[in-house]
Amino acid sequence: MKRYSQLAQTLGQRIEQGLYRPGDRLPSVRTLSEEYGVSISTVQQAYRVLEDSGLVEPRPKSGYFVPERRHIPALPAMTRPAQRPVEISQWDQVLEQVRSAPGGELVQLGRGTPDIASPSLRPMQRAMANAARRTDLRSLGYEGIQGSLPLREQISRLMLDSGCQVPPSELVITTGCQEALAVTLRAICQPGDIVAIDSPSFHGAMQALKAHGLKALEIPTDPANGVSLEALELAMEQWPVKLILLTPNCNNPLGYIMPDARKRALLNLAQCYDVPILEDDVYGELAYCYPRPRSIKSFDTDDRVLLASSFSKTVAPGLRTGWVAPGRYLDRILHFKYIASGTCAPQPQMALAEFVGGGHYEPHIRRMRAQYQRHRDLMSDWVYRYFPEGTRASRPQGGFMLWVELAPEFDSVRLNQLLRSEGVQVAAGNIFSASGKYRNCLRMNYSNRELARIEEAVRKVGAGATALTADLRRLAESEPA
Amino acid sequence: MKRYSQLAQTLGQRIEQGLYRPGDRLPSVRTLSEEYGVSISTVQQAYRVLEDSGLVEPRPKSGYFVPERRHIPALPAMTRPAQRPVEISQWDQVLEQVRSAPGGELVQLGRGTPDIASPSLRPMQRAMANAARRTDLRSLGYEGIQGSLPLREQISRLMLDSGCQVPPSELVITTGCQEALAVTLRAICQPGDIVAIDSPSFHGAMQALKAHGLKALEIPTDPANGVSLEALELAMEQWPVKLILLTPNCNNPLGYIMPDARKRALLNLAQCYDVPILEDDVYGELAYCYPRPRSIKSFDTDDRVLLASSFSKTVAPGLRTGWVAPGRYLDRILHFKYIASGTCAPQPQMALAEFVGGGHYEPHIRRMRAQYQRHRDLMSDWVYRYFPEGTRASRPQGGFMLWVELAPEFDSVRLNQLLRSEGVQVAAGNIFSASGKYRNCLRMNYSNRELARIEEAVRKVGAGATALTADLRRLAESEPA
Repeated sequence: MKRYSQLAQTLGQRIEQGLYRPGDRLPSVRTLSEEYGVSISTVQQAYRVLEDSGLVEPRPKSGYFVPERRHIPALPAMTRPAQRPVEISQWDQVLEQVRSAPGGELVQLGRGTPDIASPSLRPMQRAMANAARRTDLRSLGYEGIQGSLPLREQISRLMLDSGCQVPPSELVITTGCQEALAVTLRAICQPGDIVAIDSPSFHGAMQALKAHGLKALEIPTDPANGVSLEALELAMEQWPVKLILLTPNCNNPLGYIMPDARKRALLNLAQCYDVPILEDDVYGELAYCYPRPRSIKSFDTDDRVLLASSFSKTVAPGLRTGWVAPGRYLDRILHFKYIASGTCAPQPQMALAEFVGGGHYEPHIRRMRAQYQRHRDLMSDWVYRYFPEGTRASRPQGGFMLWVELAPEFDSVRLNQLLRSEGVQVAAGNIFSASGKYRNCLRMNYSNRELARIEEAVRKVGAGATALTADLRRLAESEPA
Repeated sequence: MKRYSQLAQTLGQRIEQGLYRPGDRLPSVRTLSEEYGVSISTVQQAYRVLEDSGLVEPRPKSGYFVPERRHIPALPAMTRPAQRPVEISQWDQVLEQVRSAPGGELVQLGRGTPDIASPSLRPMQRAMANAARRTDLRSLGYEGIQGSLPLREQISRLMLDSGCQVPPSELVITTGCQEALAVTLRAICQPGDIVAIDSPSFHGAMQALKAHGLKALEIPTDPANGVSLEALELAMEQWPVKLILLTPNCNNPLGYIMPDARKRALLNLAQCYDVPILEDDVYGELAYCYPRPRSIKSFDTDDRVLLASSFSKTVAPGLRTGWVAPGRYLDRILHFKYIASGTCAPQPQMALAEFVGGGHYEPHIRRMRAQYQRHRDLMSDWVYRYFPEGTRASRPQGGFMLWVELAPEFDSVRLNQLLRSEGVQVAAGNIFSASGKYRNCLRMNYSNRELARIEEAVRKVGAGATALTADLRRLAESEPA
């Protein structure tokens, strides 16, 4: 570890342990340089690292300070979905959300787009141009159905970080993670089958269940630790569950990381009931901790976990490049991938192999993790400041989405209608439930680097939510009991 | 029409009408220049057009000649598939064919790859590089689910050539035509439903039927005129057909163009029985005639035709950019597209919009049509020369595939095993049937510009086929009756 990293870690621990308190002035650069026997520039670098992770803030001409404690909304309680298999509703609103092209005047806090304006993505742009230039059109032919070998080699290497040893020959490139999920559901389940899912759960996965005629069995989920294993076991005793579909790392929309012990326990449960697990790891690389958390697949001893992921959240969604590590189901996955869309486009795969293989991925990801962590704190603070009193919010451990829970009578679908004239949209909570629950919740994206614009948007959402809550309360009071 | 085009047309008609016979020397450039009162260079241009379409051939220092009549194998008879709904078999061989990465030593006559080495594709390469360069990463975000508007505008314009007036708002971009087919099947049919298809039929479409739990009802098909309408009507009387899936233009694998009157009659039939039609037009732009043939959709009066197509065969498959014009089913298609793979990658769409909008598509297509038509004649000739006597072959009116029918006892699966050591593969006929028929047939691709290499490969296939036929006959004779 470099000296400035060591120093940053030491100082960071002291702040976290409370040796320096919010509002305290930290030792000057000169003092630390003398105390630790390091150069001025090493201390400056250490402070920059701490600044990047939001632990210190510089004040002009006064030095570095521990930021005033941000206000953190309370966590939502364990969710309580309907614990029986249900068909998935809510398509119309999802369609409305995904049909609109991005950009324009609307601030789309509801979308799952990462920050794609980061300078650390410049090498990716070069790699795309190289791929376009280098290829003399031959690369415009059909790839093999498994996808580019050089890219699969890079993915195989990256997966080591999550504790997985998956050779390139056991990976299949897909059109984003969405295709990995859709293809897996087709390969494993028959129409009418029951799939156990965490709740709330990614709307794209649920719509895939719907499209394949599958039923969702929503399992109560704790916003800090993930799906309730007790509830899952009860559900598996009661119903013929064919597949468990989860996002254990940097969950969308709740942001938790399931502790390793619980990942192991979940795998044991799946083994007992002989059920495969589809693990969505699309946000796993964006965990704020280092090293990144392990995947359930890394504990897998009998190849029953299918891990789906993509570069959509870590690099750019427009590359439409994801993958699945299907374990024992490789042949079935290849079949359904071929049927779904044939092979994947070679050029983005070439470019990604160059970007990752050229050593640009890791620094980019480190930068994004720090940025998103900082933004999480800001967004939590804004929710505390601008939303009605009593609003709860998730405490994401990775990714770039905040889940917000308002009073039970709140209605995020109506809020979105009100916000249209304000030029802001959020993701209404009910699209994250198979049965239309969580209408009193919403999800907001904090990836965007234009912080002033985002704060203004959140302020508008908060004002709208406050007004709507007051309206709904008045209405409730005026109605005869 | 330009003067050289007029002259080329006049001369072409005379050759077709037999005024000039195979082997005849055509009038000299000077003679024609005087006869028609046009410049020398106009005559030279007209001869170049005729040369491109294979109607004349230059001989050094002797002038232009009508080529010797090539030998044309007889057409196969009307096909006779099992006329009852069947589940689709034959996945293993399809997997083998699509799993292998292209290139290497193997000459893959069985693949559906167009010529992607044409100089007329150079502007496409520039457009790809431009798209990569111009986009400052913003284009790496999520597109709207319907896909790029500028590209849809270009597609809408191109579709006018097939007689279709479809506004950009009624088009959905997909990951190649395969996704358009797969998404449509999901949107229209429920598992267990019966789909009527031409026979032989594209294996990718059939595998999509299989994946969705649908049954195929194969309809007898004439290698010159397409599906038998009488047989189709009988089938629809007898079975609850939910969808008709056809490739009426430049059919894969048979190469026919269904006459317009029959397209109309087919549409009437679909209206009578109130069944939607899924029209695969992926080869329609590669018809050897000009203007290109009309689509069934162009006759559609009640929006029941879903037209699926792509740039995979006309520009390059590696772009993975197709589309569907879903008529009255737009909302359902958007839903299932979202579920299947989310949005499509923006960069290939930007590049294609530039390529088509910049006027590079039409000259490229004209060039490809002429090249494929020339290659068709060569390939037919090689089949006549190198294959066993009595071998029949299709007479494609567009595209770049030849369908070859051998003696009834022939086995193309065994042929492929024999050819492995020779470094050649063809597409075995049985993957084009839901019930494993056409084992005595095979399909070969003639898009490749390396003609000497392809002729050598066809020679090897022919030699292998001859040897195998003799073996099989000997075996049959030695068996007790």
